[in-house]
Amino acid sequence: MGTIRSKEIRLVTRPEGMPKPANFDSAERELPDEGGEQPLVRNLWMSVDPYMRGRMMDVRSYVPPFQLGEPLEGGAIGEIVHPGASDFKPGDKVLHMLGWREYAQCDAKALTKLAEMPGVPLQAYLGLLGMPGLTAYAGLLHIAALKEGETVFVSGAAGAVGAVVSQIAKRKNCTVIGSAGGAQKCAWLRDVAGVDVALDYKAEASITKALAAAAPQGIDVYFDNVGGAHLQAAIEVMRPMGRIACCGMIAQYNNTAREPGPDNLIMMVGKSLRMQGFIVSNHMDLMPQFLKDMGGWIAAGEMKWEETVYDGIAQAPQAFMDLFQGKNLGKMLVRLT
Amino acid sequence: MGTIRSKEIRLVTRPEGMPKPANFDSAERELPDEGGEQPLVRNLWMSVDPYMRGRMMDVRSYVPPFQLGEPLEGGAIGEIVHPGASDFKPGDKVLHMLGWREYAQCDAKALTKLAEMPGVPLQAYLGLLGMPGLTAYAGLLHIAALKEGETVFVSGAAGAVGAVVSQIAKRKNCTVIGSAGGAQKCAWLRDVAGVDVALDYKAEASITKALAAAAPQGIDVYFDNVGGAHLQAAIEVMRPMGRIACCGMIAQYNNTAREPGPDNLIMMVGKSLRMQGFIVSNHMDLMPQFLKDMGGWIAAGEMKWEETVYDGIAQAPQAFMDLFQGKNLGKMLVRLT
Repeated sequence: MGTIRSKEIRLVTRPEGMPKPANFDSAERELPDEGGEQPLVRNLWMSVDPYMRGRMMDVRSYVPPFQLGEPLEGGAIGEIVHPGASDFKPGDKVLHMLGWREYAQCDAKALTKLAEMPGVPLQAYLGLLGMPGLTAYAGLLHIAALKEGETVFVSGAAGAVGAVVSQIAKRKNCTVIGSAGGAQKCAWLRDVAGVDVALDYKAEASITKALAAAAPQGIDVYFDNVGGAHLQAAIEVMRPMGRIACCGMIAQYNNTAREPGPDNLIMMVGKSLRMQGFIVSNHMDLMPQFLKDMGGWIAAGEMKWEETVYDGIAQAPQAFMDLFQGKNLGKMLVRLT
Repeated sequence: MGTIRSKEIRLVTRPEGMPKPANFDSAERELPDEGGEQPLVRNLWMSVDPYMRGRMMDVRSYVPPFQLGEPLEGGAIGEIVHPGASDFKPGDKVLHMLGWREYAQCDAKALTKLAEMPGVPLQAYLGLLGMPGLTAYAGLLHIAALKEGETVFVSGAAGAVGAVVSQIAKRKNCTVIGSAGGAQKCAWLRDVAGVDVALDYKAEASITKALAAAAPQGIDVYFDNVGGAHLQAAIEVMRPMGRIACCGMIAQYNNTAREPGPDNLIMMVGKSLRMQGFIVSNHMDLMPQFLKDMGGWIAAGEMKWEETVYDGIAQAPQAFMDLFQGKNLGKMLVRLT
């Protein structure tokens, strides 16, 4: 029984503010290449996501913090090299949470076998058909309780989650205003995703004024990926009984000091607004319905998606850091083969 | 057919910051004392409530602003002097919205005949059994969806709404932490209303620290009457899946500039919190169930209430202004006879 060498990315220091290359280190680990009880998986794709920034801090949260000196973790797709004692076959494609490494070895029950869907690349299970897709679906339809024909504002609209939110809302015959940074993303939102108004927040002096101009009758739903000035604008422009789904606040993830909240929160009362945070892992019960709906939309050619791909495990820290510079259009991925 | 002279309080200038005596004026109006189509009502009690501050501003809201030079409006209880063309009898007690005046004359359909309840004074229909009571009931049980045995934080806990919230929560076997300003109110909360911890916010350097000490396992529900530092403390100390009912933000009603919101709003995401504003007029469908439940609690001797009473229509502006100084224990009322 031989061994294989697997490169992995470890967290060596906790970021203060923006993550830097020095927070990460690359190392190799030896794994038994066959004969173990646990299946051996060769990773093909790994995901980097903004939420990982939270796990890099040493604070109690809904998931435990990453440990210093240990490999990072996150969504990944691989293929079975050796099934070990499991029922998997070599070559089976599996989804799991041991990303940031070239090979993974774990209990078979931590691996989900993927059904390959015609016309859909495997890595879509890390985006459109995976956690980001389910996040968009649960947040928009269940947390914000979107109704047909409403007016919806989405921030980070060209990102992995926001692009799905924008398109689900269009499928529900809603008027969609998507915010993104830069002309390229806005062109994609208008021309490919089909939103009604693409708002380039980097080009606007006031997001509130731009949003009010884009939605003169107000908005009913805001899907918040960024927090800060976007959230304040949404509260200002919201119609009575409006709902806000708080999915993330990427504008604040790298703050070293706390940032004051919106100065118009008092409008929550007079306009009877609802603001609700959520994490996708509390909504796994929606997965079957999500896959059915999303599968149907994809089969009908009604969902567009983009990937921004970095190559090789060594690029994973850069891919992660570039999320906070908005360098991704659609899902940010690292290809490991 | 004679006339009667009715004193009334008019808004003559819109307050900037704290309302001042010069914003109000007293005047007399002549009303036909009999023979009109509309019933004539002699007012016995009138309510002053914090929400009226909002109507003094010239902004679009869920109710239209008060008009300059016209009498103010608000909840009042009176007795029929002349029924006019209505089916009321002289002496019938009625609830209506034409307060801030000694006599009211209006369409019969704007008057609700009150059933006198044994052991309950008539003016309770402006407090415990009226809008403040229904506000507490709807906000705590429907907006915040309180469950038996949870831990609840209430601000303005010795006020007209907060005192009812505190006691309904105790009826639901909850642990209740009530915040109020000053030792007298806190003693009432502990000794009469029966809350578990009464927190004198004026004596605390940090509401967050005081709340965390009072609720070491965190809170599940926060009923917000004040906004500001109380709201920030609640978010900080909230357990996952916590709910906030935003009823009012009295700390901000007299601001002349906008005030930044809580600096920890990002916790809404990780803790899956829900914050929801509401106005009682959207929950009138709960009135029958509310009166049934509240009637039962009162009959069982399980509800305590206090009134702070000012005498005479001329005192109405002072009663209103004193709300913002927290001079009321329980419901602030003006007796008009």
